[in-house]
Formats: sequence, C-alpha cells, structure tokens
Amino acid sequence: MRILVCNDDGIDSPGIYTLAESLKEIGEVTVVAPLKEQSAVGHAITMHYPLRVTKHFKNGSFFGHAVDGTPADCVKIGIRNLMKDPPDLVVSGINHGSNTAINIIYSGTVSAAREAAIMDIPSIAISVTNHAVTDFNFAGKVAKLLAKEITGKDIPLGTLLNVNVPDVPENKIAGILLTKQGKSKWDDIYERRQDPYGKDYYWLTGNLLEMDKEIELDEAAIKRNYVSVTPIHFDLTDYETYNKMKKWNIEHLLNGKKD
Amino acid sequence: MRILVCNDDGIDSPGIYTLAESLKEIGEVTVVAPLKEQSAVGHAITMHYPLRVTKHFKNGSFFGHAVDGTPADCVKIGIRNLMKDPPDLVVSGINHGSNTAINIIYSGTVSAAREAAIMDIPSIAISVTNHAVTDFNFAGKVAKLLAKEITGKDIPLGTLLNVNVPDVPENKIAGILLTKQGKSKWDDIYERRQDPYGKDYYWLTGNLLEMDKEIELDEAAIKRNYVSVTPIHFDLTDYETYNKMKKWNIEHLLNGKKD
Repeated sequence: MRILVCNDDGIDSPGIYTLAESLKEIGEVTVVAPLKEQSAVGHAITMHYPLRVTKHFKNGSFFGHAVDGTPADCVKIGIRNLMKDPPDLVVSGINHGSNTAINIIYSGTVSAAREAAIMDIPSIAISVTNHAVTDFNFAGKVAKLLAKEITGKDIPLGTLLNVNVPDVPENKIAGILLTKQGKSKWDDIYERRQDPYGKDYYWLTGNLLEMDKEIELDEAAIKRNYVSVTPIHFDLTDYETYNKMKKWNIEHLLNGKKD
Repeated sequence: MRILVCNDDGIDSPGIYTLAESLKEIGEVTVVAPLKEQSAVGHAITMHYPLRVTKHFKNGSFFGHAVDGTPADCVKIGIRNLMKDPPDLVVSGINHGSNTAINIIYSGTVSAAREAAIMDIPSIAISVTNHAVTDFNFAGKVAKLLAKEITGKDIPLGTLLNVNVPDVPENKIAGILLTKQGKSKWDDIYERRQDPYGKDYYWLTGNLLEMDKEIELDEAAIKRNYVSVTPIHFDLTDYETYNKMKKWNIEHLLNGKKD
C-alpha cells in the first residue's frame, strides 16, 4: 500500500513524524508537507506564485518533501509530480488541536485530506484535541487501524474520514464512535491593540460556543473521551433548502425583467 | 436593510464597485474587502498575524474598509468591529470567473459568504463566468433582485446562495435556474520551470474536466446561458456514508486493542 502523508503544522512538527513512523508499518510512506506552519489556511491553493520543493531530512536521513505552499498544494503536487505512482491512501496529520464542528471549515489538515478525496483517493485527517499535546503515539496507532479499515471497506470516492483523538492517556479512552459534524462555533473577538507608532491593529481570539450535546456529534464525543470518526465530503449543496426553494419559483425573477 | 459587501478580488476591483453601487439602491451598504487580491484562498482565516484596517477611497470619497487579510477575515472583523449594527445581509463579489462545481471549495468569494452563513446572517456569493469580464452591470442587477428575494423568503440560517452569471449580453441570458453543485473538477498540471539560477519551481495550471450534463447542475446551467443559483451550507457530514458506515461497527476496532 502506497501512503501519502501530509499535514498543516509543517514538515518539522512532531505529529507528522509519529504518523509517518506508524504508517511505515503497513505501507510505503511518502511525506509531502508544508515547509512552514499552515494552520487555519482552509482549502487555500497557490495559483499566483510558483511552488518550490526541497528535500527534508530528520535524524540525518531523508524524511520527505517540503513545499512552500498550503496543505492542499502538497497533496496536489505530491500526487501529480513527486510520487511515481498515485497513492492508495492519503493521511493528513497528526494535528495538534481538534478539528471538530466549525473548525473543519478552517482546517488545513482536513483540507489536505479533502484534496485527496477530490482526486478520488481514500483519505483520513487525524487530530489530537490539545494544542499543547506532546504524545502522538496513541493517535498514530488509531491512524494505522483506520488506514487498514478504510482500505478494506468500500468507502465512496469523494468521502474522507475526519478523526479526532482525545488527548488523554490510552487507558482513559472510552472507545471509538462514528459521528457527525457538530454545530459548535466560535464567538469571535478581535482584540484591538496599538503598535509602537500609535496605529491600531486587531488580533483574532474568541471562545468556542459549545452547542453539541448528543454523543453522535464530533465535539460531544471527544469531550467524553471517545475517538470520533466523521465521514465528510465536498458536495456543499444544501438539498433540503434546494427542495424548499423549488417553491420560490426564482425562474420568474428574470422573466419579469426581460419582458 | 444593512448590507455588508465583500469580495476576494480586492477592494480596488471593478466587480465590488458595481455590486456596492447596485445594492445602495435597496439598502445601507458597508464595504469591507481585502486590500490585496485573495483568489483561491478558500476559507483561510488569519490567526497568527494581526490585521490592519485602512479607509479606502474611490473617486475622492470614502468607499470602504480595506483589510490586509482574507475574505473570511473581512466578514468576521466587519461584523464584529467595523459595523455599528450587524448586517441583515452579506453579499460577496462580483467575482471575475465562475465559482461552480469544485471551484466552490477553493473560492474566497464563496468563503466570505459562508463566513456570514456561519454567523447566522443570510448571504449571497456572486460571480461572472469569465476572468476577463468587463461589464458587471447585469450581475449587479441579479445581485439586487436576489438580495430582495432572500430577505423576503425564509432562507434557513447557515445556508447561502451561490450565484453564477454567464458573461453574455443581457438579451442572450436564457433565464435563472435553481441548481446543485456540479461534479466538474480540475485535471491539475504543475509546469516545471527553472529559475535564472538553475533551480526548479512549479506553477499550477490545468484543465477543468467537464463532468456536468444535467441542467440542474451549476456548471451545466451556466454553459447554457442560465444564471445559476445554488443553496450551499457548511455541514460537510456525508450522511449517506454515515449510514453505510454504521455497518462497519468501528466501535469494535479499539475494543480489541484495549482487551
């Protein structure tokens, strides 16, 4: 099994190292990751600037390709130019900090996996629920388990698994649950500050409004120490509203104008 | 009606000017837009750097606030800090170049509207199907029509309208259609070039693989000169796969490990 490993924390982060080491036990791993941290870049891609690719070494031996772009760039160029044959699986992470509920929208980690899904390659995004996490080993094991699971089962093209692992000792993990994207979102605050020259600048902070109670929602599951696994896709159509909007008869809007 | 106007082409682009002028006929318009072009930034937000906001003038009078950040940043800081009262509607555009099918994922224009939807504010993203478009007037009229429509109807919180307008003379427009996100995607090519110092760099190009035939898909609708209106949301859960995956019994994956 050929596995492409990517992340959004950058090629030097401990999470991607643990992930690559764990996945080497079940396949041939190619690492293509951003040269610099790319958190919260969402699904940005680089069109108006060229990309540079450099070889990255760890402990004196070749670790992977560093790309001075976004996580989605890494997956694209990794598959199109850097790997000889396309991967059977793409795994993105291990991110420090959860990617649940609304954070899925902003996440570079998830977007890397989503880029793979767009390219019809099964993929997994994996995160640990603490920005200061130090031990990625359990999450590495979960990635390996799910990598085997996803390739053995019939996951539809275009769908990826978004996995969140609670940052607790392994014996405190309650289990693993299939979940849906939660509804929790941020109450944003822009702190207004002044620079040494008296000019204002604004820094984004905020609090996550916890709106998820039901255990089948990702944010609720991780709060109760479950590993959360959510299938997500890139069809953004709101079919319920689509069906409701049929009654709006918007096709008449322009007819009036044109007559 | 208070309307926040944003885009991803930057505050100096002609599309946002036409949009703001058109919407001023039906409401009180506040423009908050990126200082520099932000195409293809997706739903990136700025967390690790502060934002600066400057006043932007056009034809000698105040036009709007320029933010040195992403489209999603503009909507967030516009609503949280720059507007006295929250808007009743957010309109993003008018983008030069269509935002249909897979391009919705990469689009800064759509992400600005999506940020509004996340904040429970009705929103519209509007684009014209040509990167070299020069006349945004018809699209400005469509934005105004739909702005009135969306505020009069019961659009669910969390849903936005993604609108694409064919770049043809108004009398060639076939009508307006309710659509779903299409399946067309890019066949990416990274052109490998050499810099003057003999080092490689890669530039993203590619061809859109047209996979949409049915007229109810956005990319097919605009090809036949229809204005396309797609309701989209930010719940990425793949419910069909969720239901299928219940049979995987993934909860047993860790039990085996823990026993």
